[in-house]
Amino acid sequence: MERPTDLYISPLSGSFPAHLACLEVDLAVRVQRVDRKTKLLDDGRDYRSIAPKGAVPALSLEDGSVLTESAAVLQYIADLVPDANLAPAWGTPARYRLIEWINFVSTELHKKHLSVLFSSRAPAPVTEWALSGAAASFAHPARHLETQPYLLGHTFTVADCYLFWAVLVAPYGGISLEPWPSLRAYVERIQQRPSVTRALSLEMPLYRAETAAGTAPPLRPVAPPA
Amino acid sequence: MERPTDLYISPLSGSFPAHLACLEVDLAVRVQRVDRKTKLLDDGRDYRSIAPKGAVPALSLEDGSVLTESAAVLQYIADLVPDANLAPAWGTPARYRLIEWINFVSTELHKKHLSVLFSSRAPAPVTEWALSGAAASFAHPARHLETQPYLLGHTFTVADCYLFWAVLVAPYGGISLEPWPSLRAYVERIQQRPSVTRALSLEMPLYRAETAAGTAPPLRPVAPPA
Repeated sequence: MERPTDLYISPLSGSFPAHLACLEVDLAVRVQRVDRKTKLLDDGRDYRSIAPKGAVPALSLEDGSVLTESAAVLQYIADLVPDANLAPAWGTPARYRLIEWINFVSTELHKKHLSVLFSSRAPAPVTEWALSGAAASFAHPARHLETQPYLLGHTFTVADCYLFWAVLVAPYGGISLEPWPSLRAYVERIQQRPSVTRALSLEMPLYRAETAAGTAPPLRPVAPPA
Repeated sequence: MERPTDLYISPLSGSFPAHLACLEVDLAVRVQRVDRKTKLLDDGRDYRSIAPKGAVPALSLEDGSVLTESAAVLQYIADLVPDANLAPAWGTPARYRLIEWINFVSTELHKKHLSVLFSSRAPAPVTEWALSGAAASFAHPARHLETQPYLLGHTFTVADCYLFWAVLVAPYGGISLEPWPSLRAYVERIQQRPSVTRALSLEMPLYRAETAAGTAPPLRPVAPPA
């Protein structure tokens, strides 16, 4: 497999799980910030010249190719360092469970709810709609985690990198975790990992700089509608 | 790998790509219709007792387990019959490209746009929002297919099963294909496949029965807003 050279992120956005996975496997990559409004990198280049869709995360590889989409990036990082056990081996039943969870988080939690709730352009009826269905979606992993610490059982995987981020940011989008003790315990459990401390210590200052510049909203939990 | 016994679908819905993949690899499965309103199977059982999320597709396996989420189901079917070449081998660069395209279709085209446009419950401002961003999303595969017949090059894969369906149904959700000759040619090309003829001949009568029963909308292209 080609070695990655650069990981493209916007702080605390949907690229956080990929950043976390890189830190979990101790992957030496340059972390490049993409401005979420202008799509410019800190060196002035237009990110869309690297990843035309303009979405993060993306991973540049040594051969000059660029891999996008969380499902692909997360599995690529996990497969680079199999000893870290961030993904079950290809072809095993557990691997399809991993893909199933990653797809659930990316389509249902991320795209259907979080993407809309954190969009600066979505009109009020659209965010209200995204919020109204969120409880039903978050209830599914909540039930699953009542009986096991991680999505695939007792092993932390890249699917947990993704779900952890979704649950961590949910309150900032107005989704209360009050109904789900299992999700709150899950976040607390994963927050103990050194990779999380490190990812947050790298991304929080970048996020605060964006808040100060007015390109990211202030970081405070949004009260759910009464 | 455990052999699948049943594939759960709702006619012409997001389970169509999985049905198409089964026909491509000549997989002997019982195709079970899930009523999109009541979630009942034709034998009266509640589908949610099989797949608690209630979403299609799902694949029952011989050991009694159930696999859900298109990304997992499509890759499982492809991997069952490697000689059919519906997915590149695990671990190859092309396999990550497959995952990348499946994830793009499932999050961007399907969940962000088509799921909303075909929802019977989404209020008008929400469907207008989904429609307003659709052109930007469909333009990405359209550009890609200007220079190659299939998403991964010259080989038809399960990612094409998924994109074919998305492009086929787009006009019925109000997304005009007029701007993209490459997408129109892509649909025409794939419609020549015997698996497509067969999948449509199985699902169309089921869909028409739902239309007659008032549980599915009539099948006619929706004019995009002027």
